[in-house]
Amino acid sequence: MAISTFGFEFRQTAQDGAARTGVLTTPHGEVETPTFMPVGTQGSVKTLTPEEVAATGARIVLGNTYHLWLRPGPEVIDKIGGLHKFTCWPHAMLTDSGGFQAFSLADRRTVSEEGFVFRSHLDGSRRVLTPEVAMQVQGALGADIAMQLDICPPGTASPREMDEACAVTTRWARRCLSAKRPDQALFGIVQGGTDVRRRLAHADELAAMSFDGLALGGFSVGEPIEKMHEVLAEVAPRLDASRPRYLMGVGTPTDLVRAIGAGVDMFDCVLPTRNARNGQALTKQGRIVIKQARYKEDFSPLDPGCECPTCTQGYSRAYLRHLFMAGEVVVLRMLTEHNLHLYGRLVREARAAIAAGRYAAFARSWLTKDVADS
Amino acid sequence: MAISTFGFEFRQTAQDGAARTGVLTTPHGEVETPTFMPVGTQGSVKTLTPEEVAATGARIVLGNTYHLWLRPGPEVIDKIGGLHKFTCWPHAMLTDSGGFQAFSLADRRTVSEEGFVFRSHLDGSRRVLTPEVAMQVQGALGADIAMQLDICPPGTASPREMDEACAVTTRWARRCLSAKRPDQALFGIVQGGTDVRRRLAHADELAAMSFDGLALGGFSVGEPIEKMHEVLAEVAPRLDASRPRYLMGVGTPTDLVRAIGAGVDMFDCVLPTRNARNGQALTKQGRIVIKQARYKEDFSPLDPGCECPTCTQGYSRAYLRHLFMAGEVVVLRMLTEHNLHLYGRLVREARAAIAAGRYAAFARSWLTKDVADS
Ligand SMILES: [Zn+2]
Ligand SMILES: [Zn+2]
Repeated sequence: MAISTFGFEFRQTAQDGAARTGVLTTPHGEVETPTFMPVGTQGSVKTLTPEEVAATGARIVLGNTYHLWLRPGPEVIDKIGGLHKFTCWPHAMLTDSGGFQAFSLADRRTVSEEGFVFRSHLDGSRRVLTPEVAMQVQGALGADIAMQLDICPPGTASPREMDEACAVTTRWARRCLSAKRPDQALFGIVQGGTDVRRRLAHADELAAMSFDGLALGGFSVGEPIEKMHEVLAEVAPRLDASRPRYLMGVGTPTDLVRAIGAGVDMFDCVLPTRNARNGQALTKQGRIVIKQARYKEDFSPLDPGCECPTCTQGYSRAYLRHLFMAGEVVVLRMLTEHNLHLYGRLVREARAAIAAGRYAAFARSWLTKDVADS
Repeated sequence: MAISTFGFEFRQTAQDGAARTGVLTTPHGEVETPTFMPVGTQGSVKTLTPEEVAATGARIVLGNTYHLWLRPGPEVIDKIGGLHKFTCWPHAMLTDSGGFQAFSLADRRTVSEEGFVFRSHLDGSRRVLTPEVAMQVQGALGADIAMQLDICPPGTASPREMDEACAVTTRWARRCLSAKRPDQALFGIVQGGTDVRRRLAHADELAAMSFDGLALGGFSVGEPIEKMHEVLAEVAPRLDASRPRYLMGVGTPTDLVRAIGAGVDMFDCVLPTRNARNGQALTKQGRIVIKQARYKEDFSPLDPGCECPTCTQGYSRAYLRHLFMAGEVVVLRMLTEHNLHLYGRLVREARAAIAAGRYAAFARSWLTKDVADS
């Protein structure tokens, strides 16, 4: 099913097994897939400038609707002409619906057929997040891609709760499509937990609608990681191939390599940025916990093979450790750049491997180490 | 009195009234004076990389011996080959003696003819800071310029205490000169409070020694700022003109303009960096306290005439305010770059004005506003 939304298009460019490369065309430029979207929670990929984010290879970032709705408010961002202009990010952008944070961060939240009702975690104000409000707020933010409001049940939810989450998500999908801004792309979100049949059934329901892309939500919410990959291997390749496939909130480098192998095109995750702020540098050879005493006189860079500014400038592990122990915030930036460059390199090399028909070998080269906890 | 220390030299290049320009030659390159030295307390100018510091025009930075002595320790820094290599700063560097912080930050500190005894504010360990130790630690750090250990009395000290501080400082000056590394430049520190005669007498004592430069310490320690400038106008022009004159710990842009007019060549101050971290942007037109509600929908840059990355990238005051309110550390960097670029521009324009013989007009153009509190 080919969908055309003003300025938005997806075309597959190569395939190797279930893995594929593609190009996502947006009003803010092209994005080569598979791609990783750094998370810019509050209108900023934490510690970095937009130029530094782009230098990691990222051509699309994710903004959190919940946070920006509460502060500074969509009216402020709309007035300056949208989140692109507000944050000085020139490339593509996707916003989530706000539902996940409304459920996980907000106080006294309830959910009904109408939507979410919650209290802001910032000022206690009462907020109602319906599918229509989710479209209105995301419309004001003006990202290239908006996400439908959905219900994301925990991994421990009962089959009945899973069914109900799918049913409500489908009804909200229709409401979002009716309420969306015509010049914004909109992705549907497939739920269904770890039951392959339920996942596929829900995917069919959403694929029948005029979404510009299909996302897999409700993964990495407490289920065993092996189970997730089992389900992905069955479900991802069967999602409509004419539209981009986006795995939400996942994951480690290992998770990306496996999910790309299953045919996923887009990812977002706070792991590389959050781990950096906790003092962890990810490398292909393993994880470096920079505060450890073993690095006190380690004058080598984080990863001699890395092309990030932190490694090429020659900052030693000993210096980075010193900055971290001394509470100097500049080190959080240095580690964030390093980690995002690793993710950028991973998807860049994955694309090259798929195009060359050697994805299996590429995947083996990345799967030798668990480079990070999820 | 011309002094030659390996690789270190100062020559005056122009004069306009008492104001003058010069070139400081160091083993790490030339520094045009008047110059402002950003403060890199713990081996980093807070929030910035060395490249960003250099982009503000700075060609010399200050490192704090007290902090680096306690963490990571001079032995670590010595092992990698000095503070330049440890921090990846390629230009000139000066370290203070550690005495000021030993007195103001440490616990249970006492002072005697021998030196300071104190407890580390980090781990409670007992430390003894003598003139010889100050030279040994600074020798390990390996900056281009070291500072003698001195006694810096508060602005409220009695005449007797001021006399005693000068006498001890002179005796410590001799011990520092005997203990210094031969390939490091060493500056003496003139004390004497706000008494011009005492200042001049102490300056004569130190100028008779083989120091490579003369610093004015003990200003901006509680005395009225007008009193400081009165004394500077008398004392600074009479400090030996063949050596660089360094006013320690001062000050606001206004203070710099006035002190340059009195013949000072070098400055350091935490004001531009600390104020930035408190959310204050300095401009020639006045101070911007970024959290103020008036900037919520102010879509103009901090200063349209500023050439810093923050202003030229187009970040609006509204966006910077949002980042500050949201606790995003990237804004501390953006404000720090802006403030240090203002200082860089001030000394660059001052040098040009002196060379052109129009310093008085330049000073008037900067003295129309109080751009910052001290
Ligand atoms: Zn790196
Ligand atoms: Zn600026």
